[in-house]
Amino acid sequence: MTSEIINPRGAAGTERADAAGTAEAAASLLDPVFALHRGGKMEVASTVPVRDAADLSLAYTPGVASVCAAIAEQPELVHDYTWTSQVVAVVTDGSAVLGLGDIGPGASMPVMEGKAILFKEFGGVDAVPLALDTQDVDEIVETVARLAPSFGGINLEDIAAPRCFEIERRLQERVDIPVFHDDQHGTAVVTLAALRNAARLSGRGLAELRVVISGAGAAGAAIARILLGAGIGDVALCDRKGVLSADRAELTGVKAELAAATNKAGVTGSLADALAGADVFVGVSGGSVPEEAVATMAPGAFVFAMANPTPEIHPEVAARYAAVVATGRSDYPNQINNVLAFPGIFAGALRVRAARITEGMKLAAAEALAAVVADELSPSKVIPSPFDTRVAPAVAAAVAEAARAEGVARR
Amino acid sequence: MTSEIINPRGAAGTERADAAGTAEAAASLLDPVFALHRGGKMEVASTVPVRDAADLSLAYTPGVASVCAAIAEQPELVHDYTWTSQVVAVVTDGSAVLGLGDIGPGASMPVMEGKAILFKEFGGVDAVPLALDTQDVDEIVETVARLAPSFGGINLEDIAAPRCFEIERRLQERVDIPVFHDDQHGTAVVTLAALRNAARLSGRGLAELRVVISGAGAAGAAIARILLGAGIGDVALCDRKGVLSADRAELTGVKAELAAATNKAGVTGSLADALAGADVFVGVSGGSVPEEAVATMAPGAFVFAMANPTPEIHPEVAARYAAVVATGRSDYPNQINNVLAFPGIFAGALRVRAARITEGMKLAAAEALAAVVADELSPSKVIPSPFDTRVAPAVAAAVAEAARAEGVARR
Repeated sequence: MTSEIINPRGAAGTERADAAGTAEAAASLLDPVFALHRGGKMEVASTVPVRDAADLSLAYTPGVASVCAAIAEQPELVHDYTWTSQVVAVVTDGSAVLGLGDIGPGASMPVMEGKAILFKEFGGVDAVPLALDTQDVDEIVETVARLAPSFGGINLEDIAAPRCFEIERRLQERVDIPVFHDDQHGTAVVTLAALRNAARLSGRGLAELRVVISGAGAAGAAIARILLGAGIGDVALCDRKGVLSADRAELTGVKAELAAATNKAGVTGSLADALAGADVFVGVSGGSVPEEAVATMAPGAFVFAMANPTPEIHPEVAARYAAVVATGRSDYPNQINNVLAFPGIFAGALRVRAARITEGMKLAAAEALAAVVADELSPSKVIPSPFDTRVAPAVAAAVAEAARAEGVARR
Repeated sequence: MTSEIINPRGAAGTERADAAGTAEAAASLLDPVFALHRGGKMEVASTVPVRDAADLSLAYTPGVASVCAAIAEQPELVHDYTWTSQVVAVVTDGSAVLGLGDIGPGASMPVMEGKAILFKEFGGVDAVPLALDTQDVDEIVETVARLAPSFGGINLEDIAAPRCFEIERRLQERVDIPVFHDDQHGTAVVTLAALRNAARLSGRGLAELRVVISGAGAAGAAIARILLGAGIGDVALCDRKGVLSADRAELTGVKAELAAATNKAGVTGSLADALAGADVFVGVSGGSVPEEAVATMAPGAFVFAMANPTPEIHPEVAARYAAVVATGRSDYPNQINNVLAFPGIFAGALRVRAARITEGMKLAAAEALAAVVADELSPSKVIPSPFDTRVAPAVAAAVAEAARAEGVARR
């Protein structure tokens, strides 16, 4: 109707210089990133016509009443006659945003909007960014649980560890739609896919590999769990104080659980100690690993130095010792990018109305993602490009099938 | 990217007959209302390109980090660089949905989606439907307050009286964005606009008019307040037990307040008693008014029988006694339709980042809405058509100006 005339986005654009106020901010308007972000990156749209009284009587009153009445009588019809089961809430408390840390809900919104549009563009999944004005676990769980009737899934994003573990677990106990902390599981799925292909390339079985993960936060914990679930031989996690092992008496909570479940080899000491003879390095720490330590890894090692923007080991340095090198960056080969996983995972889960996303569904996603590479496999291509349009459909199909096999599908 | 291939909306469509299950539901698929509602009525869309790595590095990592950092430093920049200040949450607890009553959050979603697309199509305002899994006042207030960083305004919808009054008041105290219960204020604004034009048509001043409102719930209370604020001579409200008056000792809460603030004439008794000699009837009750009672109204009366789908008095019957007749229906002249108000009111409030929607802004909206009719004014046109594209821009401009005049604008 009148969008062009009174669109608030337009108004925001014309008055931005005033709002920004400072010369510094004015200069940032010339920055292409700021220019692109003006007025935000997303909108909602109607998928039905609302041009005249006849349209309105179908899409709104009085017609809509019959749809409401039908859902009141048969609650499962909500999934067929509303957008509910095709829309995901992207929820954050703003506590662990990118490398910026605890910047709060408002400042996290550009990332949440970005995530929402990636859901749509890559997976055909509608998504709504919700940045919460609380960092209390109970309050976050309560708030999101109360929103559940409006959504088909919950993507938790950029919530600090260890709070993120408890929020995900408790929320999933409360609601019957998938709850998925992408910083954990998205990263884990893509890492496993790359590792599968690296192993295939070098003719080694997963059970032969000893993996060292630098970083025992959200991503590190989830990577350790999925690798163990996939049958990796041994996994050791390192935090800032060194290897998580039985002799670390001070460990509690998730780190204590991880120490008990990992490190069969019983390695102790520093990250450098753990790397000696290791087959795989997975960096999700943001720290830095000296070249000397990489040099001590087993021959034909894989180095996934995923810290952004500065990998734990420069990929060109890593390549002197490793058979396969991956990073989190788009300007080097083998980018470990979550966008390879979450759009397809949610698309598949929503398609079959999965009640949750099981370990089996994540493993299936990793396998499908790895398989997309097929005969293009090479040391510089163990993972598809984020822009490979085969990825999301392949992941979605595998996830939907796994959901059916595991009995969590509801259609 | 791959929306066409794996869009869950498509999947929902193909598997609907299975999901519905019953012959009755299958038959309903032939109903144009159900056909239109398949897969819901809305979607989100990206407003920026995400076609390649360069796009991704601007809209998402690493570029987005600089926008987040800027907002962390200057929080007000969130309004310029995210969609936050142009998106409204349409919030319900599903307790008073259309004429269907307390049907719960899931069954209310078709109405909330409909409302969201009307916001967009008529006002250029993005809106997200949120149906809450709670009807507890404290929980609703807490939940919505925690969501406030993600939105520019809150439209409360279909929440039962008297709970709706407390929720709106307490929520507005908690957040610095507009909270607007449309069932109250949207209806009130459009009613006042129609009444202004009816008075103009008959050459009478608002101060001369005695108005009787049937219905003392959300809409009735808000209409009484705005009419008094606009300078109407006298207003009497009737609930199921009769006129709200000082002798109704059993009244508490909002009804007691209304009894004290209205009915200067001190009318007592039934609705029929109140109508004798009254100038205006406003029906928002869903009850029925006998022809004999309408016949006792003052000469040249106005009858706004707004119950839907069955007006309190059939408009053709009312026309035998009244100079101006309005209803809530699209198939009779003078439709009192909230869509004439809420899109423009929020568009105007968002444009100037109003902290709330004041009485002055509502009065300005009603005046602007009435003025759109201009020299087309006639007994069958005291209010514009909902599809008159002049309406939302006129209302938005008036609301923005009033917000500035009242000191609640923040840009």
